[in-house]
Amino acid sequence: MNALSLDTVLLAENEKEMIILDQTLLPGEIKYLNLSKAEDIWEAIYSLRVRGAPAIGVAAGYGIYLLADQIETEDMDEFVAKFQEQKAYLDSARPTAVNLSWALNRMEKVLLAEKDGKTVAEMKQRLKEEAHAIREEDIAISRNIGQYGFELLRHGDGILTHCNAGTLATAKYGTALAPIYIALENGWDDLHVFCDETRPLLQGARLSAFEMQTAGVDTTLICDNMASITMKRGKIDIVFVGCDRVAANGDFANKIGTSGVAILAKHYGIPFYCCAPSSTIDMSIKSGDEIVIEERKPEEVTEMWYEKRMAPEGVKVNNPAFDVTDHTLVTGIITEKGIAYPPFDQAFIRMGIGK
Amino acid sequence: MNALSLDTVLLAENEKEMIILDQTLLPGEIKYLNLSKAEDIWEAIYSLRVRGAPAIGVAAGYGIYLLADQIETEDMDEFVAKFQEQKAYLDSARPTAVNLSWALNRMEKVLLAEKDGKTVAEMKQRLKEEAHAIREEDIAISRNIGQYGFELLRHGDGILTHCNAGTLATAKYGTALAPIYIALENGWDDLHVFCDETRPLLQGARLSAFEMQTAGVDTTLICDNMASITMKRGKIDIVFVGCDRVAANGDFANKIGTSGVAILAKHYGIPFYCCAPSSTIDMSIKSGDEIVIEERKPEEVTEMWYEKRMAPEGVKVNNPAFDVTDHTLVTGIITEKGIAYPPFDQAFIRMGIGK
Repeated sequence: MNALSLDTVLLAENEKEMIILDQTLLPGEIKYLNLSKAEDIWEAIYSLRVRGAPAIGVAAGYGIYLLADQIETEDMDEFVAKFQEQKAYLDSARPTAVNLSWALNRMEKVLLAEKDGKTVAEMKQRLKEEAHAIREEDIAISRNIGQYGFELLRHGDGILTHCNAGTLATAKYGTALAPIYIALENGWDDLHVFCDETRPLLQGARLSAFEMQTAGVDTTLICDNMASITMKRGKIDIVFVGCDRVAANGDFANKIGTSGVAILAKHYGIPFYCCAPSSTIDMSIKSGDEIVIEERKPEEVTEMWYEKRMAPEGVKVNNPAFDVTDHTLVTGIITEKGIAYPPFDQAFIRMGIGK
Repeated sequence: MNALSLDTVLLAENEKEMIILDQTLLPGEIKYLNLSKAEDIWEAIYSLRVRGAPAIGVAAGYGIYLLADQIETEDMDEFVAKFQEQKAYLDSARPTAVNLSWALNRMEKVLLAEKDGKTVAEMKQRLKEEAHAIREEDIAISRNIGQYGFELLRHGDGILTHCNAGTLATAKYGTALAPIYIALENGWDDLHVFCDETRPLLQGARLSAFEMQTAGVDTTLICDNMASITMKRGKIDIVFVGCDRVAANGDFANKIGTSGVAILAKHYGIPFYCCAPSSTIDMSIKSGDEIVIEERKPEEVTEMWYEKRMAPEGVKVNNPAFDVTDHTLVTGIITEKGIAYPPFDQAFIRMGIGK
């Protein structure tokens, strides 16, 4: 089995359903769901059966296409009204997921811009093409990031990653894990990947270790607090992590613990790269200080996954979902347009990002 | 309830039983066990109902005293032979626990050195005194470490600790947490302690957070990978950790993840102290490179505590139980004889350690 067959979201051949890999069952069970009803698509997004910002965008594109395709009318005004009802419904599944709104808005924009002079049937066809385009663009971005990252690798390298920024978070390839998939496509079979388990939600253990092992890569799982000894033992040659948002100066927010990995990498003299689609680079934010960190519920730390509670009742818990890695710790930021090196703000401008 | 009432090991008032806090039930249940039979004492040590090197030593001292007290003979040679049988039996409970052998050997040495001219009854009395002495010396060592550490604290300080080197690991006070208990004894009520949960065995969540909260200290639990953001937010003024073994140059082995905490502390400019009874300083070891790291079973990372397995079947796992913190990251090593500052080898010699 090849991980690149682990499609996260795609349109079924009958073009009447979307197929998603139910990520809530990983790593124990690989189960695909065929979805066509509004309620089922909404629930899949709400319950994180599909997760990862780019993958959610792709699911939103196919989802709204399928619901539009089911609207039975020849009247364009009625079609638009019903489309907007369904769009609002899907958008309510995860109000804070930026890519969900982004993809739904993109689909609506196509509809509103091109509806005049088209039949409803032609418009449905056009929406299907746009949904495919969202997926294909995502794959192209990941593939380019992977290609630039791959060029940094040497045979036999050990690669540390944190959380999951792999194929499971996108339509294909991922961001932080994309260089490894490109290496596989080039016939490399001698890389070693180390996955931080990534407490408290364990995306490294459940998702990254799963997809890397499934792809046939030599994969080792470690607890987050083992990154230091693993680096000290000389097992790590390069670090690749994903990101949620990059500031103009190169500071970036990513899963909690990323900044600690960056500090360790600097201490041990190991190159540390952030893999970022250029859409995540926000030139309107000067530095990471402006990024607000989401604080999540204590039970994720004290109870989730466990047979019984593992901390005293009533103890205070801090559970920030993200942290900000200072740009001074970052060797380079790998985008689909190339690799930005410090000073990052100037590199971003040269690369035509975020004008 | 005060944590200093949480005695881990002591002799019952009837002097026919020892009382231990069953640490396998923490933090959910506080249950004391009264033990007098050889099998029960052996099992309590084997099953980690009592844990932490100093606490195991105290349990061994009381354990062998109780079993010796049960030997029904007036003949000293027979008494010695039966004592040695029981000693070998208790010693088999945890062959790698240095303090277990150490305490049993100390008790045997007293017996062999002082048996001539004493009745069996007098010898039993002497062994009881020696067992008490082991406990009292341990308390005195912890109290002194606590006093030296306390002098480093300022009102309102935030203290980060890793794993459990608290009262639960010793007869009283602990090592890394001793400064906080001494602060409490001095009426300080404004310290804040942050406990790394300490994967995979969660001693920080289960034990340190429990005993600190029980003692009435403002306690916050974090995942190991949150130490960086917690330091960056300015919440940590000082780090106290325990240790298993210190080399002559000040390198020291402690629970996995300690070296990462030290690197973060250095990055953020936060003082980092190792709390070490002088008995753990091994001048025969030049540096930490000579310390062998125990590798434990993968299931502790992938399955233990969980309702279901959280990593793909067959994935490789690294699970080192300890790591070595480089002496260049250590602000000072707090012993019962004072605080050693770099260069540590010279400081140890000046303090009369490990001649």
